[in-house]
Amino acid sequence: MLETGWSLHPRLRDDTVAVGDLTLSRVLAMNDADFPWLLLVPRRAGLSEIIDLGPEQSVLMDEIAQVSRALKDETCCDKLNVAAIGNIVPQLRIHIVARRKNDPLWPHAVWGKAARRAAGDAAIAGLVSALRQRLRLAADGSTVGAN
Amino acid sequence: MLETGWSLHPRLRDDTVAVGDLTLSRVLAMNDADFPWLLLVPRRAGLSEIIDLGPEQSVLMDEIAQVSRALKDETCCDKLNVAAIGNIVPQLRIHIVARRKNDPLWPHAVWGKAARRAAGDAAIAGLVSALRQRLRLAADGSTVGAN
Repeated sequence: MLETGWSLHPRLRDDTVAVGDLTLSRVLAMNDADFPWLLLVPRRAGLSEIIDLGPEQSVLMDEIAQVSRALKDETCCDKLNVAAIGNIVPQLRIHIVARRKNDPLWPHAVWGKAARRAAGDAAIAGLVSALRQRLRLAADGSTVGAN
Repeated sequence: MLETGWSLHPRLRDDTVAVGDLTLSRVLAMNDADFPWLLLVPRRAGLSEIIDLGPEQSVLMDEIAQVSRALKDETCCDKLNVAAIGNIVPQLRIHIVARRKNDPLWPHAVWGKAARRAAGDAAIAGLVSALRQRLRLAADGSTVGAN
């Protein structure tokens, strides 16, 4: 019932493919041609800051760690970049981006740089599928084996 | 004893003024002319990712929340930007930046934009002093009243 009133911001929906739902957060993969780039969006209405979560901050940190580990293991990246920004679209979400020393923006951050190059959903289908397996999430958003 | 082998990276030391030490993290204020900008550096050797912290991740989240609240209350900012990047200087630290809708880079992120404009230590002395009070940290890094 805590999810009452929550819905994913249309801009985030348009830019991503859903990976699935963890206890608190919806995991999304950005349609990005250059970076394996995930978002964690806590399914709580009206939040824009991490501190708005209150005691659920610890659940968010657990999920940041879980998703960071899965993304690092899947991509063998050199560095993870993790951020909560939200200056334009205020809905609270955490970016987790896998960076490589030979990627197009290294060593700069991906935020505040050139416009993102969108990829089609098909281009990130492999990443989405692999992450669902690692996070034990089914394609419909349920947890595998939890039913 | 957990701090054995840890020391603040020289680049971070040069760019900041120490606010004080929380249980896990050293709190630093960036010598920045445009933004109230803090860093939390866990005093643990050899870490570059949040997930390197293991169970202490929850302590880090508590400290992110504590410092975020203090910075927001002190600055009455419009938005907090929170990030772990570390692509150039690998030592794990969390940036917490107070953003205003009329600041020089709004709504862009501060990372990956134009070079930072340094301020002298004196220019941020007021912020450092106010944060020490809010976080109950003494100027020598100890916790006020904890001795």
